[in-house]
Amino acid sequence: MKRVAVLTSGGDAPGMNAAVRSVVRIGNARGIEVIGVYYGFKGLRDKNFRLLLPRDVSGLLEKGGTMLMTSRDEDFKEDSYQYMAIDNLKKEGVEGLIVIGGNGSQTGSLSLHCKGFPTMGVASTIDNDIWGTDYTIGFDTAVNTAVQAIDKIRDTATSHARSFIIEVMGRDKGFIALDAGLASGADIVLVPEVKFDIEKIIENIKSGVAKKKMHHMIVCAEGAVHAQNLEQMIKSRIDLEIRISVLGYIQRGGSPSRFDRIIATLFAEEAMNELIGGRAGKVIGIKDNKITHVTLNDAVHNEKQINYDLYRIIEEVSV
Amino acid sequence: MKRVAVLTSGGDAPGMNAAVRSVVRIGNARGIEVIGVYYGFKGLRDKNFRLLLPRDVSGLLEKGGTMLMTSRDEDFKEDSYQYMAIDNLKKEGVEGLIVIGGNGSQTGSLSLHCKGFPTMGVASTIDNDIWGTDYTIGFDTAVNTAVQAIDKIRDTATSHARSFIIEVMGRDKGFIALDAGLASGADIVLVPEVKFDIEKIIENIKSGVAKKKMHHMIVCAEGAVHAQNLEQMIKSRIDLEIRISVLGYIQRGGSPSRFDRIIATLFAEEAMNELIGGRAGKVIGIKDNKITHVTLNDAVHNEKQINYDLYRIIEEVSV
Amino acid sequence: MKRVAVLTSGGDAPGMNAAVRSVVRIGNARGIEVIGVYYGFKGLRDKNFRLLLPRDVSGLLEKGGTMLMTSRDEDFKEDSYQYMAIDNLKKEGVEGLIVIGGNGSQTGSLSLHCKGFPTMGVASTIDNDIWGTDYTIGFDTAVNTAVQAIDKIRDTATSHARSFIIEVMGRDKGFIALDAGLASGADIVLVPEVKFDIEKIIENIKSGVAKKKMHHMIVCAEGAVHAQNLEQMIKSRIDLEIRISVLGYIQRGGSPSRFDRIIATLFAEEAMNELIGGRAGKVIGIKDNKITHVTLNDAVHNEKQINYDLYRIIEEVSV
Amino acid sequence: MKRVAVLTSGGDAPGMNAAVRSVVRIGNARGIEVIGVYYGFKGLRDKNFRLLLPRDVSGLLEKGGTMLMTSRDEDFKEDSYQYMAIDNLKKEGVEGLIVIGGNGSQTGSLSLHCKGFPTMGVASTIDNDIWGTDYTIGFDTAVNTAVQAIDKIRDTATSHARSFIIEVMGRDKGFIALDAGLASGADIVLVPEVKFDIEKIIENIKSGVAKKKMHHMIVCAEGAVHAQNLEQMIKSRIDLEIRISVLGYIQRGGSPSRFDRIIATLFAEEAMNELIGGRAGKVIGIKDNKITHVTLNDAVHNEKQINYDLYRIIEEVSV
Repeated sequence: MKRVAVLTSGGDAPGMNAAVRSVVRIGNARGIEVIGVYYGFKGLRDKNFRLLLPRDVSGLLEKGGTMLMTSRDEDFKEDSYQYMAIDNLKKEGVEGLIVIGGNGSQTGSLSLHCKGFPTMGVASTIDNDIWGTDYTIGFDTAVNTAVQAIDKIRDTATSHARSFIIEVMGRDKGFIALDAGLASGADIVLVPEVKFDIEKIIENIKSGVAKKKMHHMIVCAEGAVHAQNLEQMIKSRIDLEIRISVLGYIQRGGSPSRFDRIIATLFAEEAMNELIGGRAGKVIGIKDNKITHVTLNDAVHNEKQINYDLYRIIEEVSV
Repeated sequence: MKRVAVLTSGGDAPGMNAAVRSVVRIGNARGIEVIGVYYGFKGLRDKNFRLLLPRDVSGLLEKGGTMLMTSRDEDFKEDSYQYMAIDNLKKEGVEGLIVIGGNGSQTGSLSLHCKGFPTMGVASTIDNDIWGTDYTIGFDTAVNTAVQAIDKIRDTATSHARSFIIEVMGRDKGFIALDAGLASGADIVLVPEVKFDIEKIIENIKSGVAKKKMHHMIVCAEGAVHAQNLEQMIKSRIDLEIRISVLGYIQRGGSPSRFDRIIATLFAEEAMNELIGGRAGKVIGIKDNKITHVTLNDAVHNEKQINYDLYRIIEEVSV
Repeated sequence: MKRVAVLTSGGDAPGMNAAVRSVVRIGNARGIEVIGVYYGFKGLRDKNFRLLLPRDVSGLLEKGGTMLMTSRDEDFKEDSYQYMAIDNLKKEGVEGLIVIGGNGSQTGSLSLHCKGFPTMGVASTIDNDIWGTDYTIGFDTAVNTAVQAIDKIRDTATSHARSFIIEVMGRDKGFIALDAGLASGADIVLVPEVKFDIEKIIENIKSGVAKKKMHHMIVCAEGAVHAQNLEQMIKSRIDLEIRISVLGYIQRGGSPSRFDRIIATLFAEEAMNELIGGRAGKVIGIKDNKITHVTLNDAVHNEKQINYDLYRIIEEVSV
Repeated sequence: MKRVAVLTSGGDAPGMNAAVRSVVRIGNARGIEVIGVYYGFKGLRDKNFRLLLPRDVSGLLEKGGTMLMTSRDEDFKEDSYQYMAIDNLKKEGVEGLIVIGGNGSQTGSLSLHCKGFPTMGVASTIDNDIWGTDYTIGFDTAVNTAVQAIDKIRDTATSHARSFIIEVMGRDKGFIALDAGLASGADIVLVPEVKFDIEKIIENIKSGVAKKKMHHMIVCAEGAVHAQNLEQMIKSRIDLEIRISVLGYIQRGGSPSRFDRIIATLFAEEAMNELIGGRAGKVIGIKDNKITHVTLNDAVHNEKQINYDLYRIIEEVSV
C-alpha cells in the first residue's frame, strides 16, 4: 500500500486532530503517503484532497476541532455518490481510507467498504455511543468540560441555596450525562435510556428539603428531557428556587485531555496497521483497556449500553 | 470602632470570598472584630450572625461563590425592615457594615446609611455596572470564562464552517458582551445600550460570505436580544448554517482571576480604612488604576456608560 | 459491621477527597458509621479521630489534596506502633480500616491486615505504580496537568526555535513521563526503567537539526535523569539552544479530572463492599476497565511494568 | 503611509499574537500593507519578510507565543547592523516599523528611530517592567498562570502541613512575585527591589508556628533569591518541613487572558494611529486605565517602580 486517505466526519470532537496527526506521521514512518480529505465524505465527491506531510500536522495534538474540517452529509447515503467517491479515490491512487468519526459516519465507512474500497473506522465522537469500544475519542474531554462547567454552577447553587437543572449533550444516549453527573456530584441524573418519573423526582427533592438539603443538582441529557421543560414540570408541582443551564456547544471544543490525545494516537496507529495489513472493514476502539477493533458491520448494527450500575451509585452517594 | 459586620448580596461573583477574607484579616490586624452576616440583607433581619476569626477565612482566595451566602431580598426596600436590621446590628454591638455586592445591593447600603448606620459598599458584580468604578469584583473572571467558552465554540465553528450566536450575561448593560466579544474575536457584538438593525447584520454577513468568510461569530448580551430570537431573524432572511449557545450561569462561578483576587483584597482594605476613619457612605472601586471611592448616593443615582469606542475597533479587526 | 475508619497516606493525589466522600456517603447509605483518621497512619497512633457525617464531605469532589491530611510515617514499620494503632481502633469500636494511598502506604495496610485487623487498600497515587491496577486515583489529573504545562512551554519553544528538557515526577517509574510525553508530542522520553544512551539522544537531535527541525522536546522522569544534568550532557556535546523546566509539585494538586473523580467514587464503594462482606486484605483498583481487586500481599510484592510499546510509538510519531 | 512592518522581540509573551493580528487587521481596514518580520531584529538583517493578509492572522487571538517568532539579538546593538536593517526595510518599501516587545527590545526600537526610521514600540513582556505603562501585554496571563500553579501547590502544602517556597520569574523586578503573592495568599513575598533579612523571615515563621499555623507559603522572584538557596538558609536555622517549586517557563506560554487580548488589540491600534499620523518614536501602553504612550527615550531611560504598598497589605492579610 502506497497511499491512504483520511477524513473526519460528523460532529467534531477533541482529539480528531491528534488522530489525523498520528495517521500522517505513522504513514510517513512507514513510507506511505497520506492524503487529507476536507469536509468529510463531501470532500470525497468534490475531490477536496491535499497531500499531508509530517510537518503539516505539527502542533495539532493540543488543538480542538479538526483541521480537515467536517460535515454531516445526508446525500452520502446514495449509492451513486458512494461510487463516485471510490472512483475519485482510485483516480488519486489512494488504496485505503480512514474515517475518523462517530456512529453515523461509520455507516458511511461500511457502505464504502461493502462496495469494495478498503475502509477503516476510528471511533471518535463526544457521545461515546459506538458499540464495541469502551471509549471514543473526545468523550473524556467533553465530560471534563461539562464537569468543570457544573463545578462553576455549583458555586452559585451553593451561594444562593438554589437548585439547578443542567442539560448536557446526548440525544439518544446518556453516556455524557451519567459520567458528568457522577463526577460532579449530581443528585439526580436523567438519561434517554430510562423513562423518568417526575413524581419520583419531586419526592426525592421534597425529602432532601425535609433534611435541610440546601440545593439539588439535576443533570439531564438533552434526549431525556429539555431543561426548560423539566423546570416547568417541577415548578408546577412544588415551590422551589430553581434555575437552568444548557451547556450546549462548549462540550464539543477545547484542547483534548491526555486520555483523548493518547487513544487518538493509538487508534490511528492501529487503523494504519490493519489497513496496511489488508484487514480493513473495522472500527478501532479500546476495550478492556486494550486497543482493539470490531467489524464495521458489528459496530454499526449493535447498540452500546450505558452502565446502569452507575445509577445506583449516584443515588447512594447523594445526600 | 470595635466591631463591624460584613455581608454579600445580590448575584454571587468570583472574588466575593477574597473580599470577605480581606475584611476579616484586616480587622484582625487592627483589633476589630468582624461579624459575618449570612444570606445578605435577609441575614440582618434574621440575625444570622457569626463571629469570623482569621482562620475561618483560610483557603478562601481561590474559591468562587460566597461563603457568607447571598440573596436578592425585595422586602429590604421597606423602611421597617431596614430599621429592624439596624436595630439587630446595634444589639450585637456592631458599629459599621460592609456590603459586598452590585448596583441593587448598594441601594440597600444607601438606605441603611441614610438611616444613620455607617455603611460601606464594595463594588462586586460580574456585570461591571456600578458608576464610579472602572471594574467591579468578578467581572474579569466572568469575561475570562466567557472567552474560554467562546474559544471552544470557535473550534466547532471553524471545523464545520458554521456560524454561531453566543448569548452572554448582561440584562441592562453590555460590558460583558463588549469585552468578551473583542477578546474572542467576535465579528458582531450586540449590547442593550445600542438598538441593533437586523438588516445591517444581514448585510454584514452577506458581505462576509461574498468574501468567502467561513463563519461568523456573533456575541449578544441577553438584554440586547435572545440568541434564539436572533437566530430566527437571521434564518428568516438568509440561508445560513447557524447555531446558538447561551453561556448562562457558568459565567458566575469559578476560581477568581488574579485581578479579581487583588482588587477584592484592596477594595476590602480600603472599605475598612474608610469605615474605621469615620468616612462611611461610600462605594469602593478602582478608577484610573487607583483604589478609590464615590459616595453611595452618586454610585446609585448615576449610570455607568460602556466604551463605545470598542465598537468601532471590533468592526475594524473583523474580516 | 457498624463502624469503619478511613485514612489517606503518602503523597497527596487529586481524587483522594472524592474517595473519602464516597466512603462516608456509602457508609451512611448502608448504616455504617465512618471515622476519619487524620494525618495518615500517624493519626492511628495519636487517636486523631473524628466521626464524619455525610455533609462533612459536601463539596469535596472537586477539591485537590486531602481533607484528612496525610503524612509519610517511617516509624509505622515498627510492630509496636502497629499494635498500638489496632488497639486504638478497637477501643473506638472500629471494625475495619480503609487506606487510600500508594505503594508504600499499602505496605502499612498489609502489616495491619496481617496482624488481624481487617484492612482494605484503595489505590491512590499520582505515580500509577501499584501492581494489579491499570490506573490509580490521581494519575489522570497529574498527567493532564503535566500536559497542559508542556503545552505552554511549547509556545515558547516554538516562538524561539529553542529546545526544552521537561522533568516530570517519577522516582522509580516512568508512567507519568511516558503518558505525558506521548500526549504532549515529546520527541524523546526518558524513564527510570530504561537506561538511556546520551550518544543516541545526540544522534537523534542532530538528525532532527539536519532535517530543519526547529526544536526538540525531551520529557524525562526525575528518576531517569535530572533535567539539569541532562542539559549539561547535551551542551557538552553539541551547540544547541536548550532550556529546562522542572514541573515539580504542581503535578500533585488541582481539581481532579472526571476520570479520577469517578474511579475514586467507585473504588471506595468497592472497598466498602469487600470490607462489609468480610473480604478484607485487598487493594481496590481498575483492570481491563472493570473495578477489581488484588490481595494486599500481591499488590505489595509485585512490580508494575510500563507499556514499552508506547516507546516505539513516540519515536514513530516524532518527526 | 502605504506599508509598515511588524516584529516581535525578546521573550515571548501571551498576547503578542493578538497584537500582530490587530496590526494586520487595522492595516487592512485602512489600506496599509503589513509586512511580518520573522525572528525579531534578526529578521531585519536577514530580510526574513512576509506580506501578511488579514486571514493569515485568523485564529491567533487565543494562541500563546508569537507566530512571527522572536529572538534576543545581542548584535543588534551595533550601528552597522541597525543601518543594514533600515536599508532592508526601505528597499522593501516599508515606511514604518512596529516593535512588540519588552524593555530590551525597545532599546532597539529607539536606536532605529534615532537613526531616522519611524519606529513604534508596543509594550509586551510578562515582566511588566516598562516605564510609562501600568501593564504590559502578557503580564496578566503570566500572573494568572503562576497563581493557578500556586493554588495547586497549596493543596499539597495544606494536606501535608508542609511549607513551600515558590520561585517565580523576575530577574530585576518583583512585579510578578508581588502580584502572584498577593493573589495566592502568600505569607511572605521577596522581590529584587528589597533586600530581605533572613532572620526576620525566620522570626515570622517561628511566630506562625507558635500560633499553630500549619504551613507557610513564600513566593520569591528569581532575582531576589533562588528557591534552593532560600531553602538552605531556612533549614540551617530552623527545623521546618519545607519544599521548593520553581515555576519557570510555564509562566511564559498559554492562551492569553481577556485582559491581555484586549490591551494587545488596543495597543496595536494606537501604534498604527500614531505611526500613520507621523508621530513615531513612542511606546504604547496603558496608564490610569487609558491607552497612552510615552516617548521611546523616556521608556528606555526611566525605571518602573513596584507598588511598595502591596507589601504592607500582604503582611496584614497573612495570619
